[in-house]
Amino acid sequence: MRNTLICLTLFAVSAVIGRGAVADEGMWLFNNLPMDYLESKHGFKPDAKWSEHLMKSCVRFNVGGSASFVSSDGLVLTNHHVGSDTLFKLSTPERNIMEAGFLARSNAEELRAPDLELNQLVKITDVTDTVNSGITEGMPTDKALAARREAIAGIEKAATDDSGLRSDVVTLFGGARYHLYQYKKYTDVRLVWAPESAAAFMGGDADNFEYPRFCMDATIFRVYENDKPAKIEHFLKWSQAGPDEGELVFVAGNPGRTSRIFTVDALKYQRDVRMPFVLDLLRRREIDLQQFALGGPEEKRRARDELFGVQNSRKAYTGMLGGLQNPAVMAAKVAAEAKLRDAVQSKPELAKLDSAWDIVSDIQRERPTLLLRNPSIQSRLFEIAETIVMMQVENKKPAGERLPEYSESGRDSLMQQLLSDAPIYPDLEQCLLAGSLARMAELRGGDDPLVVKVLDGKSPNDRAAELVGGTELADVAARKTLIDGGESAVKASQDTMVHLALMVDEEVRKYRKIADELAEREKQSYARIAEAQFATNGTSTYPDATFTLRLAFGTVIPYEENGETVAAMTNMAGAFDHQGKHVGEADYQLPKSWNDARSRLDLETPMNFVCTADIIGGNSGSPVVNQNLELVGLIFDGNIQSLTADYLYTDQQSRSVSVHSSAIREALRTIYGATELADQLGR
Amino acid sequence: MRNTLICLTLFAVSAVIGRGAVADEGMWLFNNLPMDYLESKHGFKPDAKWSEHLMKSCVRFNVGGSASFVSSDGLVLTNHHVGSDTLFKLSTPERNIMEAGFLARSNAEELRAPDLELNQLVKITDVTDTVNSGITEGMPTDKALAARREAIAGIEKAATDDSGLRSDVVTLFGGARYHLYQYKKYTDVRLVWAPESAAAFMGGDADNFEYPRFCMDATIFRVYENDKPAKIEHFLKWSQAGPDEGELVFVAGNPGRTSRIFTVDALKYQRDVRMPFVLDLLRRREIDLQQFALGGPEEKRRARDELFGVQNSRKAYTGMLGGLQNPAVMAAKVAAEAKLRDAVQSKPELAKLDSAWDIVSDIQRERPTLLLRNPSIQSRLFEIAETIVMMQVENKKPAGERLPEYSESGRDSLMQQLLSDAPIYPDLEQCLLAGSLARMAELRGGDDPLVVKVLDGKSPNDRAAELVGGTELADVAARKTLIDGGESAVKASQDTMVHLALMVDEEVRKYRKIADELAEREKQSYARIAEAQFATNGTSTYPDATFTLRLAFGTVIPYEENGETVAAMTNMAGAFDHQGKHVGEADYQLPKSWNDARSRLDLETPMNFVCTADIIGGNSGSPVVNQNLELVGLIFDGNIQSLTADYLYTDQQSRSVSVHSSAIREALRTIYGATELADQLGR
Repeated sequence: MRNTLICLTLFAVSAVIGRGAVADEGMWLFNNLPMDYLESKHGFKPDAKWSEHLMKSCVRFNVGGSASFVSSDGLVLTNHHVGSDTLFKLSTPERNIMEAGFLARSNAEELRAPDLELNQLVKITDVTDTVNSGITEGMPTDKALAARREAIAGIEKAATDDSGLRSDVVTLFGGARYHLYQYKKYTDVRLVWAPESAAAFMGGDADNFEYPRFCMDATIFRVYENDKPAKIEHFLKWSQAGPDEGELVFVAGNPGRTSRIFTVDALKYQRDVRMPFVLDLLRRREIDLQQFALGGPEEKRRARDELFGVQNSRKAYTGMLGGLQNPAVMAAKVAAEAKLRDAVQSKPELAKLDSAWDIVSDIQRERPTLLLRNPSIQSRLFEIAETIVMMQVENKKPAGERLPEYSESGRDSLMQQLLSDAPIYPDLEQCLLAGSLARMAELRGGDDPLVVKVLDGKSPNDRAAELVGGTELADVAARKTLIDGGESAVKASQDTMVHLALMVDEEVRKYRKIADELAEREKQSYARIAEAQFATNGTSTYPDATFTLRLAFGTVIPYEENGETVAAMTNMAGAFDHQGKHVGEADYQLPKSWNDARSRLDLETPMNFVCTADIIGGNSGSPVVNQNLELVGLIFDGNIQSLTADYLYTDQQSRSVSVHSSAIREALRTIYGATELADQLGR
Repeated sequence: MRNTLICLTLFAVSAVIGRGAVADEGMWLFNNLPMDYLESKHGFKPDAKWSEHLMKSCVRFNVGGSASFVSSDGLVLTNHHVGSDTLFKLSTPERNIMEAGFLARSNAEELRAPDLELNQLVKITDVTDTVNSGITEGMPTDKALAARREAIAGIEKAATDDSGLRSDVVTLFGGARYHLYQYKKYTDVRLVWAPESAAAFMGGDADNFEYPRFCMDATIFRVYENDKPAKIEHFLKWSQAGPDEGELVFVAGNPGRTSRIFTVDALKYQRDVRMPFVLDLLRRREIDLQQFALGGPEEKRRARDELFGVQNSRKAYTGMLGGLQNPAVMAAKVAAEAKLRDAVQSKPELAKLDSAWDIVSDIQRERPTLLLRNPSIQSRLFEIAETIVMMQVENKKPAGERLPEYSESGRDSLMQQLLSDAPIYPDLEQCLLAGSLARMAELRGGDDPLVVKVLDGKSPNDRAAELVGGTELADVAARKTLIDGGESAVKASQDTMVHLALMVDEEVRKYRKIADELAEREKQSYARIAEAQFATNGTSTYPDATFTLRLAFGTVIPYEENGETVAAMTNMAGAFDHQGKHVGEADYQLPKSWNDARSRLDLETPMNFVCTADIIGGNSGSPVVNQNLELVGLIFDGNIQSLTADYLYTDQQSRSVSVHSSAIREALRTIYGATELADQLGR
């Protein structure tokens, strides 16, 4: 479960589940936790103090993952694969932190991340009425979209000005609810410890989404304020022994996106159109990046982070699509939908909701054009140029009319990304850009006017070389000059990438507008389906994932696969056995540090474990805690059966996979010689 | 240039080039060699004896490659990658011939290939008038197709009965000409020598289609008759020194398919629809096979041959598409077409040809449906079942009405393939079948009636497991029983794969019929375009490639790339240098035999060389000969610039790549201790 989130958020609608919850299903809102269910099923009723402490102990990585505070002086625990974006940016040919790992022996040795933003959720407020205050019955979609966008921008700005906190309005239940989430931001984030990628990702692409596993997928950062380690009030204690088999555990993190409310027709669009389309794109990128990496060791290093992310998404999508292609899965969805529609049709007061399903169906027929026509260019240099170009236009609009990502409340985060000094590799940029240009030519056809303009008489490869060779945007100072120079500087710029961004701007905005309006219409329909759900099954339910903090829970239990029991826990001895069974296969070789420490390790130390908690991409790095709020594990993956969780939860075989807390401590002490750091955990 | 042919023949139209030939362009028919051009440009005029000897010294590998006789007692030289299909079939987990190589120390040690058929072309006859004898002006396409098919079946049967030779009518110039090709067949083919794949394919996927190269891409077989080495009258002598730089050389082989006659609209269909579609499929298979290979060393071995073939095709298609996406290339095609159409329009006697271009355009609009709807299932077990099922129906038809591959003249070859005891791996079959079923579901949509029927309520993975688990067709005896039992046995069969073949049969035949009629209409149009070409530029020209014997020629000369000269020849020292520059990269490591022999080798021995001869996939394994018909090289690849040769030849940078004859001899003697074999070459 690497940073799938980046792909999974290509389009997002949040909504309630389309059927009654089963077993320990659910990604619950912290302001609507299933207290009664927990008490009746598990005999445990958390109080407000419990949930506040857990909520404030959690940290969101805005690159697409979750984390938690694990010490009073700012230590943050997450996955290696959540931190890998930063590990990659901090690596050089000479010091390959990504592969070789890292340990700071003192605060002074900690390495500042170039562009990380960490968010701690401190407050949730229901603002549904305010967001909808300007909406009237029968208002056209574009007007409703504009009215809500303006209301949201207003709420966010006022909240930011008032509190100094990052303030985001989140659309829940497809728009049946709007909540204001307020975060304390940390932007000075430093790397403390990372293991070698061979330990973090043991088994590589083959073991990804599989179980049993033996991964030390953990990394520790520290947040700073005013150049000093931040003082943290809410942090998690470290469990002495970790969870017992059968124990109830809790997972608090930021699931990225689920589609459980999706109607059958919306799922069929995913099955027959969007997922195959995305998979073709992912496989293409995977091959392009593999080919680039064949260039040599340095090319391999440069491509690694992106390649692993793409492989992870490809595997996740393959599993998701495989589920949708299973007629039994679709039949369950059809039955649930029929039941809910029957309920709607049988109650006159719900009759006005009945057209929602048909509207969603209609919208699916409009979506394929968007996939084919939207100019999507993958290149960091292009993204920088595009952001600068769009910013000029957005800045001139009244605050309430701007595209959300250019809102005033999000400006600091946007600028942090834009002015990041993370390295940009021209050769890798050229590879990705050439792939994007070729793909645009294929999707739109070689005679399409935009394609003709963009290629400018050259082949995709030659044009990509020209574009990368003619831009200065790899240099942060050049970006600053351009941003400071404003619209006139952008228009006068001779930068090839700025030219390209200007060239496609009109078309990008055109399809963005169509996409936003489709999303708004769909959202309105899902809000009505959510209302039908509330009316039928009550409001003690949870919305689809929105990359905001949620609570999941479950028990640590084995499962059956091909007639055999898969044990819930592995141990360190198993890691060495696993290595021994795959001699000669690079992805299964533990790093030297592990093999050297083998004799000193307590090989009985639990390594990874599974539980039934309901998670999805974005939950990577989530703390797993016991009833006493002690950290017992660190979510890093789901098994292959969990991949249908996008649209369907079951606890039959579906399991989330965690690093055991004891394994992290044992590794720090015995393998990495980081006793001091290990002793700080939970204190 | 591995066996791209397998993919490249997805659909085939043969035709003349659409413009005047440049420089040493051309894949010439042996019964219409460019004698005048050779004499005027190169001062060399081959006589009939020269061309007959060369023609009869050549051998076609029906798996998709070329070769030549190189001794009086049946030795056949081809590429390792042409022989690899057989090397793979002869390999087991215990004896991995593909990786480790092979050398027979005596005739008794030679290994019989399970299903190779080699063809030696002995006679070409123009049968155009006979094929067209039943065609009347304005005859509907389906009637014309049936009439020609019947005429062709009649010609082939009579010729086979008469001569005992394999007799194939070949459509040339899009149907402006039909020639009868008659071959002596060799079906007892035994492996004599193969190097390690690390030597044959040094540099792997990264170096494929690149230059300079250092590959020992050679393998030697021997043909047998009556269980004795066949006595061969026409074979090539072995050159003492190989070619000089600047020397004129000849390449005789079987180019698989080119599209040089294609109209601009047909090329745009290739550019915007078919090639992107095929590339998506290839990348998908590549990823599926990579994933399969991650299962362990034995899975890796099983997937290897197919994976390398797919990677090769993917790289070839990427290059071909890249060329078509280059506006300059398309502009050249547009200009050539305008010139020819102007000529047609200016001559009243050619007016009747003018609609041909518009008809071809119309046909392109009908093609996409075929790509999306034709049930294409990739699995050897399914192919066997499908062939047996179709054979029952075809057998009942009059000879002239059968699908060509079920014709009487081709029956022996068909049965040889069908009853091959080459190993079939159920796990690999399941992987490929699951991929095919998932893809069919994606292309047709999950609610498509055929998809619903084929999946039978299961996911693609589960259904593939069921299908592979429930078939006995991996067993040759089971196939025989079914074939011998005829239609009633097939209908009564409980075999899952036979069931599947019966299930899709109607749909397969439906799209086959549409495809055949489209191809016939297109062929008729290209025949008229060819006539326009003859009328304008004369008949001393060559048709598009048809996987039949052709003569190409060119000179051994360097080329310029990125402002630098790429030398025409490499040597053995360069192979070791290349290895040294890529330490730690598995694909660049020469095998132990080479490193052990290093000090004994004459490192100045030329290794690979380039020339300007006009080749394409299918030419792999072609002998390169000098004016004295001595073998100087062995074609194994083209450089990346040559990939546009499908639709456009240039000699600016485009080069074919050969193993030097001296390298083969030196390797046999000094590395492989096969002095006796080396001494037999050319004798």
